[in-house]
Amino acid sequence: MQQTVTSGASARLRVVVVGAGFGGLSAVRHLRHAPVDVTLVDRNNYHLFTPLLYQVASALLDPSEIAHPVRAVIRGWRNVSFRMGALTGVDLGARRVDTTAGTLEYDRLVVAAGSVNNFFANASVEAHAHPLKELDDAMALRNHVLECFERAAVAADPAERRRLETIAVAGAGPTGVECSGAFAELSRLVLRRDFRGSAMDAVDIELLEAAPAMLGSFAPSLQRAARRTLERKGVAVRLGAGVRELGEDGAVVLEDGSRIDAATLVWTAGVRAAPVAELLGVEPVRGGRVPVDEWMRLPGHPEVYAIGDVAAVQGAGGPHPMLAPVAMQQGEHVARQIAAQAAGQPAPGPFRYFDKGTMATIGRNAAIAQIGPLRVSGFPGWVMWLFIHLIQLIGFRSKVVVLISWAWDYVTFDRPVRLITTTRRRSTPR
Amino acid sequence: MQQTVTSGASARLRVVVVGAGFGGLSAVRHLRHAPVDVTLVDRNNYHLFTPLLYQVASALLDPSEIAHPVRAVIRGWRNVSFRMGALTGVDLGARRVDTTAGTLEYDRLVVAAGSVNNFFANASVEAHAHPLKELDDAMALRNHVLECFERAAVAADPAERRRLETIAVAGAGPTGVECSGAFAELSRLVLRRDFRGSAMDAVDIELLEAAPAMLGSFAPSLQRAARRTLERKGVAVRLGAGVRELGEDGAVVLEDGSRIDAATLVWTAGVRAAPVAELLGVEPVRGGRVPVDEWMRLPGHPEVYAIGDVAAVQGAGGPHPMLAPVAMQQGEHVARQIAAQAAGQPAPGPFRYFDKGTMATIGRNAAIAQIGPLRVSGFPGWVMWLFIHLIQLIGFRSKVVVLISWAWDYVTFDRPVRLITTTRRRSTPR
Repeated sequence: MQQTVTSGASARLRVVVVGAGFGGLSAVRHLRHAPVDVTLVDRNNYHLFTPLLYQVASALLDPSEIAHPVRAVIRGWRNVSFRMGALTGVDLGARRVDTTAGTLEYDRLVVAAGSVNNFFANASVEAHAHPLKELDDAMALRNHVLECFERAAVAADPAERRRLETIAVAGAGPTGVECSGAFAELSRLVLRRDFRGSAMDAVDIELLEAAPAMLGSFAPSLQRAARRTLERKGVAVRLGAGVRELGEDGAVVLEDGSRIDAATLVWTAGVRAAPVAELLGVEPVRGGRVPVDEWMRLPGHPEVYAIGDVAAVQGAGGPHPMLAPVAMQQGEHVARQIAAQAAGQPAPGPFRYFDKGTMATIGRNAAIAQIGPLRVSGFPGWVMWLFIHLIQLIGFRSKVVVLISWAWDYVTFDRPVRLITTTRRRSTPR
Repeated sequence: MQQTVTSGASARLRVVVVGAGFGGLSAVRHLRHAPVDVTLVDRNNYHLFTPLLYQVASALLDPSEIAHPVRAVIRGWRNVSFRMGALTGVDLGARRVDTTAGTLEYDRLVVAAGSVNNFFANASVEAHAHPLKELDDAMALRNHVLECFERAAVAADPAERRRLETIAVAGAGPTGVECSGAFAELSRLVLRRDFRGSAMDAVDIELLEAAPAMLGSFAPSLQRAARRTLERKGVAVRLGAGVRELGEDGAVVLEDGSRIDAATLVWTAGVRAAPVAELLGVEPVRGGRVPVDEWMRLPGHPEVYAIGDVAAVQGAGGPHPMLAPVAMQQGEHVARQIAAQAAGQPAPGPFRYFDKGTMATIGRNAAIAQIGPLRVSGFPGWVMWLFIHLIQLIGFRSKVVVLISWAWDYVTFDRPVRLITTTRRRSTPR
């Protein structure tokens, strides 16, 4: 492939990677030894280990244990630089992206912008429900739930107290299951002792799933195991229970018209691709994703790649599920393509996803895992889950501190981060 | 002393303690075995270890390492309960306090509401400067400084870049000294490697003090040692440099009319008592403090005590400095008085402050300490500082995690919490 150098400053390929999530960071990591210059752009200054987000929301982990500064990650990679900014425009002709931190020219563009919440145009849910996609979401949810419990402790009206102690979780995928399990344990194992004397044992966790089954991507035997475990922990699992809206009075209204008077609605029922299809001038496919070929290339623009949640591979095996391993493998594949181009070597074959398996945890001592033909549940699954997540965390310090936090929680039933904090922003004159 | 039981429910003294800071928590801790019922009230759900607040601001520690949930602290104390709420009124006649979490009747009231920032009615400073009193302040300051550095990295105009990389710290007491030292190290040891290639070594830390000396409460030899250390770390120390205002353009204007074009002004130049004197119906003395006798009792109301920053003892030894050890000793003294009353024993003698000494740290390997006739500076002072602060932290987990964080920073020059996060609040319908 011929390389077009649009600026005379350097003969090295200039690669811009948008998004420092699993996909973008994987692409950058696999380009770190290639003869290219990489600029990584993200609107946050950290990479977020989203699988543990629910543990921040449930007061177990501190933000810094799952969020790692991008500049710290790329410190040793001499051909990589970082800009904190949001993508605002793409000029495919001029090979230029606009960001809130300035304009960047590229020879290769990798769009790894991830996904955003899908509230399915339900305005009341979008306005009042708590999503669980971003670090800020997790902290806002933690604050909100702890505040509800504080208010419940002094509520005179029993109905109001019950409302404040009811948490509805919409969506019984892995996030919803993990989140409801974690809140059940937070209230039954931790907060009940904090709020002795008040009616904390009345805390009601409702896991709501519109589909007839929970954890749709898992085998039925594991679905049943997960449900049994959740129910033993005190979670009420309701299948075929889609959320229609949030009522004026704050109650969760289900599709069948029934109501759940819950002060908290956690929304894990849908995600869609980040809205970049329009910026790239393509018609999005299902879920708002950008259609790409089996090399994750934009139609008509082989120098532009889209990977991860934002991309839908058209062809054999695609589109792939919106999962971190897909994004990471696609990031590596795209990096190998770009490195081959930079070195004048032949391109690798089309992308093929290697499914290493999926898992979900349901609280202490319980998780489910599905690895090829293998089905694991209960304690063995949980130990596997712990081990796999721990080794995936970036940084030695995070591993140690998360391990201590988990061990502390396991032994003492104590969640150290049950703090209600807000971050005010000071206004600045300019 | 005769006990007045205003409700027939219990013959035990009902003690309300307002404030879960050093003073209030000390009072409650020393009442935990007394035959009284204690209600602790605080507007936050955590006790804050304020001496390490600057380490949260400088991206070294996570909030949960210095903030400990009040309910976790009092878990084992069967006669103590907690309410999260702010004090809104006191009815001295009816012996009743109003809080945002309901009304409480008391037989004994301990007001330990602490102090707030004093901007000396300077509206521009109050609106735009970053104080460092609360956990939220520390996180807001961390976000702001990291964001300024990110913006500096892409700033085209050298003057704007210099402005973004200038941090002015007003007030050279222990907080100002510790804060400026910490930011100097953050920028020179940590961020310079994060922002390689950009002009991060141009970061300018200006420590501004209106008085002719810094660290006024320390001996001159220690003041000189602290100044030398700060200057070696790259902090410009300006004495006799009071802040007059923040200009329209955001520049810091000094009393002599000179200007410092700084994107960040940290305000550690003044505190005053929390505004409770009016609620208690007394004329405040200097610093807005509540005048009390040598038993910390309100004039005319021996059942009401004020301790710590909020109180000014009239009489021998008083008023005492606004320091955590004063508040803790006064809390213990008041608890002993109330316990004696509950047990029908004679009251202890008047309060006498035992000064165990003061210290301040100036960054890695350097601190100053003044303990009676002893003056310690440099590395030995620093080791003492580390040790004393570590053992004062509440909870085994915090001690371990803070120790790991300090060791990690010391060995790797890495500040793990350099995250720019905001906590949105979801609106709730009711």
